[in-house]
Amino acid sequence: MVHPDPVLAEIDQQFPESLNRTFELLRFPSIGTDPAHHADCRKAAEWIRGQLAAMGFKAKLRETTGQPLVVGEYAPPRASGNVPHILFYGHYDVQPADPLELWTSAPFAPEIRKGRTGREAIFARGSADDKGQLMTFLEASRCWLKVHGKLPFRLTVMIEGDEEGDASHLDTFLKRNAKEFPVDAAFICDTGMWDPKTPAIDTRLRGCTGIEFTVTGPRIDLHSGYYGGPARNPIKVVSQIIAAIHDKKGRITIPGFYDGVKPVPRKLLKQWEGLKFPARKFLADVGLSVPAGEEGYSVLEQMWARPTAEVNGIYGGYRGPGSKTVLPSEATAKLTFRLVEGQDPKKIRRAFKQFVKDRLPPDCKVRFDDSGGDSSGIAVSEDTPWIRAARAALKAEFGREPVLTGAGYSIPVVESFKKHLKVDSLLVGFGQADDNAHSPDEKYDVDSFRHGTRAWARIIAQFAKE
Amino acid sequence: MVHPDPVLAEIDQQFPESLNRTFELLRFPSIGTDPAHHADCRKAAEWIRGQLAAMGFKAKLRETTGQPLVVGEYAPPRASGNVPHILFYGHYDVQPADPLELWTSAPFAPEIRKGRTGREAIFARGSADDKGQLMTFLEASRCWLKVHGKLPFRLTVMIEGDEEGDASHLDTFLKRNAKEFPVDAAFICDTGMWDPKTPAIDTRLRGCTGIEFTVTGPRIDLHSGYYGGPARNPIKVVSQIIAAIHDKKGRITIPGFYDGVKPVPRKLLKQWEGLKFPARKFLADVGLSVPAGEEGYSVLEQMWARPTAEVNGIYGGYRGPGSKTVLPSEATAKLTFRLVEGQDPKKIRRAFKQFVKDRLPPDCKVRFDDSGGDSSGIAVSEDTPWIRAARAALKAEFGREPVLTGAGYSIPVVESFKKHLKVDSLLVGFGQADDNAHSPDEKYDVDSFRHGTRAWARIIAQFAKE
Repeated sequence: MVHPDPVLAEIDQQFPESLNRTFELLRFPSIGTDPAHHADCRKAAEWIRGQLAAMGFKAKLRETTGQPLVVGEYAPPRASGNVPHILFYGHYDVQPADPLELWTSAPFAPEIRKGRTGREAIFARGSADDKGQLMTFLEASRCWLKVHGKLPFRLTVMIEGDEEGDASHLDTFLKRNAKEFPVDAAFICDTGMWDPKTPAIDTRLRGCTGIEFTVTGPRIDLHSGYYGGPARNPIKVVSQIIAAIHDKKGRITIPGFYDGVKPVPRKLLKQWEGLKFPARKFLADVGLSVPAGEEGYSVLEQMWARPTAEVNGIYGGYRGPGSKTVLPSEATAKLTFRLVEGQDPKKIRRAFKQFVKDRLPPDCKVRFDDSGGDSSGIAVSEDTPWIRAARAALKAEFGREPVLTGAGYSIPVVESFKKHLKVDSLLVGFGQADDNAHSPDEKYDVDSFRHGTRAWARIIAQFAKE
Repeated sequence: MVHPDPVLAEIDQQFPESLNRTFELLRFPSIGTDPAHHADCRKAAEWIRGQLAAMGFKAKLRETTGQPLVVGEYAPPRASGNVPHILFYGHYDVQPADPLELWTSAPFAPEIRKGRTGREAIFARGSADDKGQLMTFLEASRCWLKVHGKLPFRLTVMIEGDEEGDASHLDTFLKRNAKEFPVDAAFICDTGMWDPKTPAIDTRLRGCTGIEFTVTGPRIDLHSGYYGGPARNPIKVVSQIIAAIHDKKGRITIPGFYDGVKPVPRKLLKQWEGLKFPARKFLADVGLSVPAGEEGYSVLEQMWARPTAEVNGIYGGYRGPGSKTVLPSEATAKLTFRLVEGQDPKKIRRAFKQFVKDRLPPDCKVRFDDSGGDSSGIAVSEDTPWIRAARAALKAEFGREPVLTGAGYSIPVVESFKKHLKVDSLLVGFGQADDNAHSPDEKYDVDSFRHGTRAWARIIAQFAKE
């Protein structure tokens, strides 16, 4: 490892200019989902391309089925086959800014002021999600290059414009062009810290797969005055199937559902326990008080490490005002399964189909729609060089051990990198819970920006040899 | 009993004129639910009033909250307190006639021709439901009066214009004016024969009560990526409640649900078995093959004599195309219960509410809507003078014992008579299964009309003393 001090000094000295550059990027109203702002997206992409070019990257805008993708390629001089090839990912597109009247300052006129918690922050749409975050890595790389003349790895920077919209654009691009990116790991800066003092690395993401099923009983809707009694009622059948999915302890009864699910390593579990996650408040915020997931697991485990079966919607029969004595011909339920590492989405769908078929009474048919996309759960070993490097660097910068967290949702790009480039992602970010990502008055703490930039320099240092 | 032969002879002789009068009534397009035809309703009512007046009744149109009600009052000369007071009920309003292009002859231009089964029939909207039927009684009474000069009972004829629409109009009228009608029994001619050769008396009707319940879990819709696992899902809760309503044998598990339900008398049950109801075909017509009601009961019993709990509708969460990873804040189900004699609709609703509350997991609330109307199940003893009279008369006219049938639905007017006038109804009618009531090419068999009229004369004869 090279000692990062000279680079950290450079970062501190450059800090006002780093902020200025970040402000420039924040001024582009690059709302990727709004066609009226597609020109702004291209301008933002072009600005990033220019920054990369100025740092010595071969940088291009690549066309996709959505907004342009910025791709910058860096190779250290005299690169041997031994240096790793890192992919850094971020996104320049931002959420729409409305309702505008709820913003204290204009969303695309960034300014620094104190937030409600008294911490200095950059207020602008996209400051936390994800422009401010991606700039921490670019500024760290810039300063490193200025001090050392070269980075200790090959680097591909990939900044997309469809993260807030349709993830399939980047996925399609990666699928088509995978051979161009023979990388060893992806670094992603789009997540958060555990709290303003504690850095975090996301090592677990749940995957997701969906299925809809429709049970048909009688050929037509029936009058309950005639057929009430002997007629099969598909709403009852669907309800019985849904009721059978979980046992009394909240465990899913679909045969084979838990195949491949590994327990969380004891050490990680102990670390999660140490987080003192405020489960009571987390539930109280949405009007709940008792965890409804699998018995024997903490709320954090239920969210980060346990697969689920969730009914997202149900409908059948009469749904207007008042009552109607109809026995419906069919009823439908929509489900999604949150998955963890080791579960195969396709197998889960097959197992659920069989589970439904096994419970169909006479005279009922079922049809399924599982045409949506799916993603696998991801659990990154804590023992990769990337995680080791990040843990050491984050600890040095923040003065405390980073926590290894999970997330209950999937991040599609992580899945795309895994699928097409065959690499794990290192998820390190510096957002805070009160950043208002996706809401008015989005902000990014100045300390997040400063320590984030310094932390990336420390991570880079982990790969540099004297 | 007076021998009815002279009246039967009069009926046969008058038959062409009886048909002519029925045609006159059928020509009024008295569609009660269509404001464009309200004038026609009043004309039809006025025509009936005229017929009653011509027969010596004090006849009036009574205004209601809906269409006018024809009320004709007849008292035999020197009526003692000993003669019974009969209420005869029918309705002059008809279903809309569309789609007109599916009619072989115009719906309000009655004509006699052979139907698909080869039987001669009167084709017109309202011929079977209910103008032809109500005319059987009026023509029988007319002929009786012509031959004998007086009827053997006090008689109130009540012909309404809202049967196909809102039953609350007549109910409100009866509630307000009950004291005017101190009758002993109601005769209703709006039902059918078992088959073209076998007369029937309906002695059982199921009642109905409805309730809607909405279970609320989280305060707001949640993202399954965050809350999937620990969050309570109200769709699951509603499904579990619905699944718990029936046990494996199709029996309803709501405590107290069967309180007051009496077994069908063995004799009646044996008679039902003798009907050889084509259960297989009845189910096959709607795409079913296996009765799904309570085990140990025939399809006829399940429909006519057993109470049910039916889910008529369900909804919650996302119901659009594709999938959405939402955990909904609430879910709703609409139920109706078909009830038999002995069950109290209010108690049933109370018991169901308790059943739901007993199954609510932590953090869930429930709200109910049971604001709709209800009706009790009705089972008329086979041993009333009215049933005895009708059985004897129908047997004499058709040459075979009438069957005592049931119906799985309620007839609101029967409930209104029971509630406000405190009387049972005698349900005798001559419709056939292929009459197309409510459909194009509605018809009423000429034999139904002829034997129906003669049968009423025989019923009247049962009350006449030499």
